[in-house]
Amino acid sequence: MRFAKGHGTENDFVILADPDGQQELSAHLVARLCDRRAGIGADGVLRAVRTQAAIRAGSLPGGPPPALADGPGNGREPLPEWFMDYRNADGSLAEMCGNGLRVFVRYLASHGLVTGPSFSVATRGGFRRVRLGSDGGVAADLGPARVLGPGQVAVGGQICAGLRISVGNPHLACLVDGPLAGYDLTRPPELDPAVFPAGGNTELVRVTGPGAVQMRVYERGSGETLSCGTGAVAAAAAAAHAAGQDHGSWQVSLPGGQLGVELAAGQSWLTGPAVIVAEGELDPGWLSLAAAGQARPPG
Amino acid sequence: MRFAKGHGTENDFVILADPDGQQELSAHLVARLCDRRAGIGADGVLRAVRTQAAIRAGSLPGGPPPALADGPGNGREPLPEWFMDYRNADGSLAEMCGNGLRVFVRYLASHGLVTGPSFSVATRGGFRRVRLGSDGGVAADLGPARVLGPGQVAVGGQICAGLRISVGNPHLACLVDGPLAGYDLTRPPELDPAVFPAGGNTELVRVTGPGAVQMRVYERGSGETLSCGTGAVAAAAAAAHAAGQDHGSWQVSLPGGQLGVELAAGQSWLTGPAVIVAEGELDPGWLSLAAAGQARPPG
Repeated sequence: MRFAKGHGTENDFVILADPDGQQELSAHLVARLCDRRAGIGADGVLRAVRTQAAIRAGSLPGGPPPALADGPGNGREPLPEWFMDYRNADGSLAEMCGNGLRVFVRYLASHGLVTGPSFSVATRGGFRRVRLGSDGGVAADLGPARVLGPGQVAVGGQICAGLRISVGNPHLACLVDGPLAGYDLTRPPELDPAVFPAGGNTELVRVTGPGAVQMRVYERGSGETLSCGTGAVAAAAAAAHAAGQDHGSWQVSLPGGQLGVELAAGQSWLTGPAVIVAEGELDPGWLSLAAAGQARPPG
Repeated sequence: MRFAKGHGTENDFVILADPDGQQELSAHLVARLCDRRAGIGADGVLRAVRTQAAIRAGSLPGGPPPALADGPGNGREPLPEWFMDYRNADGSLAEMCGNGLRVFVRYLASHGLVTGPSFSVATRGGFRRVRLGSDGGVAADLGPARVLGPGQVAVGGQICAGLRISVGNPHLACLVDGPLAGYDLTRPPELDPAVFPAGGNTELVRVTGPGAVQMRVYERGSGETLSCGTGAVAAAAAAAHAAGQDHGSWQVSLPGGQLGVELAAGQSWLTGPAVIVAEGELDPGWLSLAAAGQARPPG
């Protein structure tokens, strides 16, 4: 089984090409692939399947092509050629991953699997429009960032006021004044469960100049991470809201790198580097143990 | 540039084959290869160079073949065919790595680069004898474990009495009674700097049956790790010493797996699994940025 490893602002992924949707991708195998010491190591797995094959295999709802998720006019679009089957590092299914989508697109492009710089990708969260940059970067429209209202969170005992923002998933983005290093994100920020029944991501955001923010993010279920695509969009939306805007361009500086966010009506374009590190072949002996869910090799 | 990734009881390594010693392996590149999110990810890099080429390149002392390190009789041996150029994850040189040597040997064998199940490998720490098992495991003689005398350490405020043991590098191995989970290894154990001027590794060891121990290890400079080859030897030597022995076989259970240790006069054989996970090719674009020490891609 061939694989690639790539990253977008240090969110990293194992990529598997499976055009005909014939690979058995068990939760066991995903977890072993993402194991940073006994496997390849990644935040998640991106399996590239032709959308028609994914529909035949039941990986994606069939029937008439779904609407372009949250796109302008919500018009019907032709079926995208590729479906991104995204899995979390623990093997569970997930709908979407902003940085993952950007790395997925870089992989397709570097293998000549797509034509043109602009197209759509099918995900469990709907179709997403993407754009290849000439500098190696990739942009993806994560759909609208909806400002839902004020909220608050306790971060290491400090109460932070913020905005509840939905980018498909729930965020609380807090504009703060002091240095971001002063916050303890080693423990989960305490969100009000009445307001965030399914939890949420917490962003600490500092405006550093016109159209520029710095941020740290705590992702529900993962802890503090080096980068989060929807979190960058939420941070930009919170900064825009504070400036009385709902559109515009923002540079977002994260521990893992720089992302650009462009907010427009019903759209949030996330732009940044997407890197393929290496490609290769999984060892057949390793693969058969991993697929069987066997944690320990003999010897 | 081709690479492999492998692990021994979840100590993991990037392996580079460079028979003629012609690869420029800068500290930058090693650190980027070992970066778990922006690179492949590993505890260290193992470069396989023919010993004659390594001597010509000045990577290894030349002249008459050095003595088999600490081997019985300290007799002169023919030059091993392969030199293991081991680097720490930060790019610095290191003399030896027990689990790394076992993974190195599995790599050589899986590529048909060695003949016979038993041979020697050149390292900066001397020649080391190794043995391929029929079950995929690899054994390596790490040389003598020298019990130097009693010592003590404060582990999360708890004082633990132990034995100072040299396995080439310095250890304090503490036999303890209670469950190993009760110790805090999130901070460095406090060794007496007068006794350990260069620091040392701390092992917490619990005898669980005849010839069987459980252990946790804190490695100087790395923190708590899932496995440590010389640490397993030190743990076995401490358990043997407590039983009034200086030889015998021990099963050592670590968070990353099981290792066998066989202590004999002037020898410590470390046995366990050695796994190749995958092999492949580094992306040329990634490689040129990494070799230039450039941390961030464009995009």
